[in-house]
Amino acid sequence: MIDYRSDTVTKPSKAMLEAMFSAPVGDDVFGEDPSINELENLAATMFGMEAALFCPSGTMTNQIAIKCHTQPGDEVICDVTSHIYQYEGGGIAANSGSQVKLIQGDRGRITAEQVRESINADDVHKARTTLVSLENTSNRGGGSCYDLAEIKKIRSVCDEHGLALHLDGARLFNALVAKGESAEDYGKTFHSISICLSKSLGCPVGSLVMGTKDFIRKARRARKAFGGGMRQAGYLAAAGIYALKNNIERLTEDHQHAKLLAEALSKKNFVETVLPVETNIVIFSVRGQFTPQSLVAKLKEQNIYWYAISPTQVRIVTHLDVTQNMIEKTIDAINDL
Amino acid sequence: MIDYRSDTVTKPSKAMLEAMFSAPVGDDVFGEDPSINELENLAATMFGMEAALFCPSGTMTNQIAIKCHTQPGDEVICDVTSHIYQYEGGGIAANSGSQVKLIQGDRGRITAEQVRESINADDVHKARTTLVSLENTSNRGGGSCYDLAEIKKIRSVCDEHGLALHLDGARLFNALVAKGESAEDYGKTFHSISICLSKSLGCPVGSLVMGTKDFIRKARRARKAFGGGMRQAGYLAAAGIYALKNNIERLTEDHQHAKLLAEALSKKNFVETVLPVETNIVIFSVRGQFTPQSLVAKLKEQNIYWYAISPTQVRIVTHLDVTQNMIEKTIDAINDL
Amino acid sequence: MIDYRSDTVTKPSKAMLEAMFSAPVGDDVFGEDPSINELENLAATMFGMEAALFCPSGTMTNQIAIKCHTQPGDEVICDVTSHIYQYEGGGIAANSGSQVKLIQGDRGRITAEQVRESINADDVHKARTTLVSLENTSNRGGGSCYDLAEIKKIRSVCDEHGLALHLDGARLFNALVAKGESAEDYGKTFHSISICLSKSLGCPVGSLVMGTKDFIRKARRARKAFGGGMRQAGYLAAAGIYALKNNIERLTEDHQHAKLLAEALSKKNFVETVLPVETNIVIFSVRGQFTPQSLVAKLKEQNIYWYAISPTQVRIVTHLDVTQNMIEKTIDAINDL
Amino acid sequence: MIDYRSDTVTKPSKAMLEAMFSAPVGDDVFGEDPSINELENLAATMFGMEAALFCPSGTMTNQIAIKCHTQPGDEVICDVTSHIYQYEGGGIAANSGSQVKLIQGDRGRITAEQVRESINADDVHKARTTLVSLENTSNRGGGSCYDLAEIKKIRSVCDEHGLALHLDGARLFNALVAKGESAEDYGKTFHSISICLSKSLGCPVGSLVMGTKDFIRKARRARKAFGGGMRQAGYLAAAGIYALKNNIERLTEDHQHAKLLAEALSKKNFVETVLPVETNIVIFSVRGQFTPQSLVAKLKEQNIYWYAISPTQVRIVTHLDVTQNMIEKTIDAINDL
Repeated sequence: MIDYRSDTVTKPSKAMLEAMFSAPVGDDVFGEDPSINELENLAATMFGMEAALFCPSGTMTNQIAIKCHTQPGDEVICDVTSHIYQYEGGGIAANSGSQVKLIQGDRGRITAEQVRESINADDVHKARTTLVSLENTSNRGGGSCYDLAEIKKIRSVCDEHGLALHLDGARLFNALVAKGESAEDYGKTFHSISICLSKSLGCPVGSLVMGTKDFIRKARRARKAFGGGMRQAGYLAAAGIYALKNNIERLTEDHQHAKLLAEALSKKNFVETVLPVETNIVIFSVRGQFTPQSLVAKLKEQNIYWYAISPTQVRIVTHLDVTQNMIEKTIDAINDL
Repeated sequence: MIDYRSDTVTKPSKAMLEAMFSAPVGDDVFGEDPSINELENLAATMFGMEAALFCPSGTMTNQIAIKCHTQPGDEVICDVTSHIYQYEGGGIAANSGSQVKLIQGDRGRITAEQVRESINADDVHKARTTLVSLENTSNRGGGSCYDLAEIKKIRSVCDEHGLALHLDGARLFNALVAKGESAEDYGKTFHSISICLSKSLGCPVGSLVMGTKDFIRKARRARKAFGGGMRQAGYLAAAGIYALKNNIERLTEDHQHAKLLAEALSKKNFVETVLPVETNIVIFSVRGQFTPQSLVAKLKEQNIYWYAISPTQVRIVTHLDVTQNMIEKTIDAINDL
Repeated sequence: MIDYRSDTVTKPSKAMLEAMFSAPVGDDVFGEDPSINELENLAATMFGMEAALFCPSGTMTNQIAIKCHTQPGDEVICDVTSHIYQYEGGGIAANSGSQVKLIQGDRGRITAEQVRESINADDVHKARTTLVSLENTSNRGGGSCYDLAEIKKIRSVCDEHGLALHLDGARLFNALVAKGESAEDYGKTFHSISICLSKSLGCPVGSLVMGTKDFIRKARRARKAFGGGMRQAGYLAAAGIYALKNNIERLTEDHQHAKLLAEALSKKNFVETVLPVETNIVIFSVRGQFTPQSLVAKLKEQNIYWYAISPTQVRIVTHLDVTQNMIEKTIDAINDL
Repeated sequence: MIDYRSDTVTKPSKAMLEAMFSAPVGDDVFGEDPSINELENLAATMFGMEAALFCPSGTMTNQIAIKCHTQPGDEVICDVTSHIYQYEGGGIAANSGSQVKLIQGDRGRITAEQVRESINADDVHKARTTLVSLENTSNRGGGSCYDLAEIKKIRSVCDEHGLALHLDGARLFNALVAKGESAEDYGKTFHSISICLSKSLGCPVGSLVMGTKDFIRKARRARKAFGGGMRQAGYLAAAGIYALKNNIERLTEDHQHAKLLAEALSKKNFVETVLPVETNIVIFSVRGQFTPQSLVAKLKEQNIYWYAISPTQVRIVTHLDVTQNMIEKTIDAINDL
């Protein structure tokens, strides 16, 4: 089985598994899990942020950040394709009582100018704008990356209007590697950042949200009320430590693989458009002989798993469990279609 | 002062005031206000619906309906310009924990096909679609009216997918009069309808939400928790009774007035586009010598009040406190610009 | 009909009604209703507070105050019999996402010591204590009054722990008159005060919440999202102005009436205990020949309306629609039982 | 270090760790983690319930159950010492918008009669009672156990009034073992049950909530919005499978240990009362020479960790990391005090 459905399907490597099961653990509710403490320190240091909090999922880290930055009746500015709006179970409203101002961005990326125009006037009829949330890389934008310069402009607009700026960095490391940018620069630019260990970094479970100490204190309360506090979760945290130390550089490989697949696809008649490939995601639209469903079914016959994400589009995600060999086999399969 | 800012600015006529002043009242929390009871019965009967509930505002009747039709984590389909999303203080999320699927409609009106495409799949990642909310006439659509036939198609889509269908009918009577449609037909097509007495009907305060007895029982609970239960509010209800009996037919006059104003405006160079005028609202965009702000300021010098509703648009609303005389004076003022 | 069920059943006197229907009105959403503006200024000045906001009900003013003082996940300290917890439709949790710490007070009154002991430790497991809410007079305490000295001690505890202090003053004027205390002293001691016009003051509809300008700005937003913003509600506000000027001093009469009824009741065998009568409420428990229900039914035969408020208790409330004559008639009826 | 602070401090045994380490895993968001699927089936089968859902914590399983059984504005009946009210970050209100009716039970246990008296009348002023939640064993009741007969009576009251009945069974296995009761009998009596793997069962992380298939479908949605969906969490689930198969019977040992400690304590002058010991928790109050804090500090000198849970009480919890040897050492320490 060659599984391109998501980079969440990865399983720990032998080395990661060894790191996990030799990890020292303790009761994190008492603050006594050494592996969780180490991971939180490692992540915060990497981004130059004051503190970090380990959580069961990227959805939780995003939802906690939104909850800590807003009050019920507030409005969150984000791209219409954002994970926080599209794929977190309606959580912005359900967990935080806040509504969204949806921007039609460019492959998931919004501009400082769009943010500025979207801020509500100070009027009791309007929800109070308090938060801007970006996603980098953008999942539905086909793994597209922001320019850090544009993000800094967005931060300026936020500062002018007293808005918080959050980053859903579920696949931030892909962006950092692709653009040659530094984690510290991101840490300086956002009020809070969420990163996910269980996507391209190859861990089984876990995400981190980072911010000031005060923010993380509030986040810890929010995590408790959601039920996200775990006990001896150091086994999971140890995978995160391993991944942050070993699995970042190698993302370039996934990006090359994605480009190879996109190249093969772009030669086929049944492919209408392939979104530009910047990282590890390939999104393309189909026409003619195939629907997304029939194409996915066809590939499945050869044990290759793709994902139909809309009535016209298919998504392929490369990751550390997809080897060069598998890529070649997949290209052969594409050529044979 | 000729006040076109909104049809909410009307003051009760002498006859309405007399009706108010002589109304029998009682404690509505004990269900003992005869005027409120009469108004609720009158409205329900008019629409052929089982029951009605008197509330302090159209925002409350909408918010109550949304609360009764949804649960936190649900999604409400509506046009992006909807009053419920744009002008109710973020209430959908704050009061009901529900998020919105925003449709780019045609002057505030959405189609059955758009509704169908907007229903989320049954997937834990997605908010659960449970409610469609229409607005007729559409305020930001410039008083545009739905075709009842399209609404019936939307209802069919709702029935197929188990969705509730609510109408924000703040200016529904304008639509009924303009299209020659009947209240009963609307009563049959919606699960709940909100109508407003303090807009074009000329009452000082009050709205009604209508639905089944069960729905109104839930609505009464929601009204209590919002603090919308009033005591001897029969004085306000009496104005509503008067308005439902006397102020509906005359809306054609307001519509003619709006058309006259639109005609005068459309001849002016500084007017870029006037949205088609179907009822009592004229929305136009300006260019050249005027900005919306400067145009509004200019008219104010002659005691004529318009409203700049966006960086490019001005809104004029006609109502029963705008006489033929005032229209003529306004047209003169437009011609002189 | 002699109606002791509540002081909410009063109807406006002729003079109040004249004040109402000669009131100048305007669109309060534009801030242009002169009567509402006058009432808000009058109330704020009376209490020496910065600003006030007119709302449709005392439930709304309380719920708005709670919403402005708390965030979801917070805890509100109050007496177990509090109106905000018992009779506002679960609004503390539904509107504000906050839970209650319920204190067993003395006839509805809690002490500074009880407040101190009820503040949660700073621990993620515990809801964050942020608000103390008092009720004066206490409805379920039988119209009992606080000592202002104890309230000041409570305020000190609040200051020490950074808690807000709110007063549900639905019947505060009864307490002020009974204890000879001043509104200004209350204004100095609370962060927010809610007063009700439609209870013992005899108005048909309306309450006010008071606080700092900042607080009232937030309150105005909360009112909008609940749908509590009304248009030409000056007719109601005018009743409030009249009441604040004319109906406060006369409350002593209602208090004397209540004492007379209590005295008559205390001589009867079927009365077990009468709660001490401090203001306009008499709560007593029955035994022997009567249940609350049968006693209420018995009196109803003579067109006297009392209220069975629990399986053992009956409540009588005096107000400005209960004349001396009616009191005498009622005492005769009690004596004849 | 002998750690009696909680049974959550346990670390996996070698055998459990091996089970974890060799577990097959997959992406549970796609429903493809074999170990999670096996654990969910095992638990559901054990209790004769239709389905189960694996979550990161007992707080989450409780909060999900409450969310699925209620709507905002509802009321939950529970003992005043309940974990769901006292130690879940105000989650009932914050997550579900519901308030509590708090019962003064007997060491955490409430009766059918108390439940019946606590159900609100159908009145818009009152929150709508919809859920009863029990805790067995009761943590703050000192590990006290319900009689299943009383629970069945409570279920009858629930059935009469259309209420759901939830069990916070964080330490349910202790009760089953202590009373010789069967999991199936509990499965028949409750609409939902939450069990915790990371307390006396000795797992590092995880809880399960069980109910009908429909309920679990709703629960899965709620888990997603909280961010409780994990990817390859089969490593954690494998510990749960091991624990359900190997760690239940041995709880009698912990119970005996708790009794031995209680016996030793009850002979000491500084111990005022020891709550009856039914399972693995000993709660006692101190007087004279010690405060809870000073006693805890004293024991800590010998590396024995107890927990001061109130200004007068100390709690000791036995578990599978406390050996017979450690118990003896602790009794010596008690005797020497």
